[in-house]
Amino acid sequence: MTARVLVVDDVVANVRLLEAKLSAEYFEVVTALNGAEALEAVHAAPPDIVLLDVMMPGMDGIEVCRRIKSSPATAHVPVILITALDQPEDRARGLQAGADDFLTKPVNDVALFCRVKSLVRLKMLADELRLRTGVDLLGLVEEGAEAAAEPGHILVIGERPLMAERLRGILAGRHELRVAASAQEAAEACDAAGRAFALIIVNLDMEGADALRICSQLKSLPQTRQTPILVTVDPQEHQRLLRALDIGVNDYLIRPIDRQELLARVATQVRRFRYAQHLRSSVRASLELAITDGLTGLYNRRYLERQLAQLVQAAVSGERPLAVLALDVDFFKSVNDTYGHAAGDRVLQELGARLRTHVRSSDLACRSGGEEFVIVLNEASLAIAERVGERIRKAIAAKPFLAAPGCLLPITVSVGAASLLGAGEGAEELLKRADLALYRAKREGRNRVSLAAA
Amino acid sequence: MTARVLVVDDVVANVRLLEAKLSAEYFEVVTALNGAEALEAVHAAPPDIVLLDVMMPGMDGIEVCRRIKSSPATAHVPVILITALDQPEDRARGLQAGADDFLTKPVNDVALFCRVKSLVRLKMLADELRLRTGVDLLGLVEEGAEAAAEPGHILVIGERPLMAERLRGILAGRHELRVAASAQEAAEACDAAGRAFALIIVNLDMEGADALRICSQLKSLPQTRQTPILVTVDPQEHQRLLRALDIGVNDYLIRPIDRQELLARVATQVRRFRYAQHLRSSVRASLELAITDGLTGLYNRRYLERQLAQLVQAAVSGERPLAVLALDVDFFKSVNDTYGHAAGDRVLQELGARLRTHVRSSDLACRSGGEEFVIVLNEASLAIAERVGERIRKAIAAKPFLAAPGCLLPITVSVGAASLLGAGEGAEELLKRADLALYRAKREGRNRVSLAAA
Repeated sequence: MTARVLVVDDVVANVRLLEAKLSAEYFEVVTALNGAEALEAVHAAPPDIVLLDVMMPGMDGIEVCRRIKSSPATAHVPVILITALDQPEDRARGLQAGADDFLTKPVNDVALFCRVKSLVRLKMLADELRLRTGVDLLGLVEEGAEAAAEPGHILVIGERPLMAERLRGILAGRHELRVAASAQEAAEACDAAGRAFALIIVNLDMEGADALRICSQLKSLPQTRQTPILVTVDPQEHQRLLRALDIGVNDYLIRPIDRQELLARVATQVRRFRYAQHLRSSVRASLELAITDGLTGLYNRRYLERQLAQLVQAAVSGERPLAVLALDVDFFKSVNDTYGHAAGDRVLQELGARLRTHVRSSDLACRSGGEEFVIVLNEASLAIAERVGERIRKAIAAKPFLAAPGCLLPITVSVGAASLLGAGEGAEELLKRADLALYRAKREGRNRVSLAAA
Repeated sequence: MTARVLVVDDVVANVRLLEAKLSAEYFEVVTALNGAEALEAVHAAPPDIVLLDVMMPGMDGIEVCRRIKSSPATAHVPVILITALDQPEDRARGLQAGADDFLTKPVNDVALFCRVKSLVRLKMLADELRLRTGVDLLGLVEEGAEAAAEPGHILVIGERPLMAERLRGILAGRHELRVAASAQEAAEACDAAGRAFALIIVNLDMEGADALRICSQLKSLPQTRQTPILVTVDPQEHQRLLRALDIGVNDYLIRPIDRQELLARVATQVRRFRYAQHLRSSVRASLELAITDGLTGLYNRRYLERQLAQLVQAAVSGERPLAVLALDVDFFKSVNDTYGHAAGDRVLQELGARLRTHVRSSDLACRSGGEEFVIVLNEASLAIAERVGERIRKAIAAKPFLAAPGCLLPITVSVGAASLLGAGEGAEELLKRADLALYRAKREGRNRVSLAAA
């Protein structure tokens, strides 16, 4: 892994030292000697991460951090504050200013690379999911990012009972702890509730099991691979720690464990996990909007066209049947004209809800336009399509629709059913034949199902 | 990094050897001794990667690969075929069957971990971008995946002239080569056309420059960080190669370079790059669909509401002005009633196009519903909004609209303009005042701009 790192410190010797360490590991380093220079560098070409000394004359690191985090163009750049060991209050101020992590002077190599890499990895993920393009495409569904601050369930693996109790004492109130003494108990906890954990703490020196193996298993299991892991480790176990970081462990605590350090590390990891999960669900929600009809929640025409073409192909190559129903609300124009568009919309919404209860998860229910709907019935013959169409027709006609408070309207639909003729027929032709059958149902008196001619 | 690896070989000793190597590096290993077992394991719990011996009695590795790749549930799992050195034709058959990469027996550790890690990284990216959820949300815009097979531009860095010519000779016809002799020339090529390269080949033993530094720079620059790097290296430069792979180099070739090996490695890397780029653009296109009005290509109401709230906040906190225009087509219902919906749609499309030419890139042009439009003017006062509104009104009225072939209609719009009152006002109130101004414009005779009262 490599990345572009901006190092900011007013003491030239400190800048040179960090620059040398990072360059030796083939990071690209840019430097700044004061807050103004740093802000200029960040805006000119946002780096992948900023290492920022807190104590600087003029604009201090906290203020630089605040400005980076409050500008929309640079807020996504991770910031690590470098604080003096004797200034613990800097951490609280740094967190308020939006800092992502902390290092204490003198900066230890393992801590430096662990924190830089961990944050760069998260930024790469965010860059991929946000697809930064001038317009923030995810702006649409960014609500609820505050959820990131919520407490979470934490799984503690391999700590001795006394230590587990101490962790519980420190973290209680903020987090719900589950303790697994052995690898076996850990596996059971993950099977049962892997996705519920916002953090897993692993004792790297646990007895009776290879903690590194447990970490690699956690990072391979689908239900925990995205969950951050924080390891606790004895100071002399340097090599094991490096190994753990290699496997993908996210952060570490050296024993004896400092209460403040534990709280800060846990909070940071849980926050990052929540942020990444939030990004994922934002992308998913946005993608779902693109294929959904806003009024009924059914799939939209765009999605229908795309998916039907694929389903037709799959049916032909697998020699399986496929059928579609084309539905249209009878006399819908008069609903709109008589009761207004809002009433018409309510009818369409209720219709969508009733359709949904009559299709299987392998089927596709779509609003194809205005008062027109299409249902794709996977692996269904024409006879089955007719039965499903008849069932839907009856379900619509059986119970009037509440179009407005106190306004119950009898609604009926006409349905055309068609099934795929075979290799010669495409999605468009199939829909066309279903439409023709639908017109016949209309002509023959509505509120009925017609079958398409072959 | 870790991952779940399925090792398939009919020779137990081979399985055990690969299992031992992978386990020692903390990969999670599952094994199968024949094709049927392998398919069962892949379907039961898809691994992150499959290492598949070609020569097996019964179902051979090529057939297993073909089946994994032809099932939608498992096609995304990367497959590395393990071939005998004396069976080069297995590669061609393997590629046809969908194999992602190859290893030659006896399996070399560097090659093994390089290829496994490189493919697992790509799969992780794909998993993130596809957000596998039962429904393939990207199904919508998956067209053009075949583009993956297209040739690409390749940048060759630091090879001696004779070697560069040899590479050109082998790759010509399939790929366009650009040769940079020095680090300086490489930087210039990337500045000029970094995004055009589908692959960068770097001589790890180049003279007069640190090739590892060049690789880390390429992996840090925004325009080349996603471009794969293939290094060429002398057999004795083992440590440098490991370092290069650490930095994020994607694959390597040991000198003397074998023509077939070069072609295969280049094709594999270019194909993967294209695949990743395709995934990214699919996600982007899907996200864009979610915020766009299908008819006019302007932003939709959903996006307007979300963005306007943010713009109002930013304007208030930055003490900058913000204005909106509410537009409505005059007598639009009569267009629809007289000339039909298709003609009405054409008018709205043309209107959208004209609006677009009158807004800046920092503005937001939206179709808020039916024949209603909203334009958000960033950092604009009420006086500016009035001028822009007037300009738009004139541009619409100046030239009739082609509603259908031979059918030119005079169209006018009424416009209401409002500017943000300050901290007290929200997006909804601002829109409301613009709407009220619009109604006044209608009442006062249409084809005019009215300003909102404060």
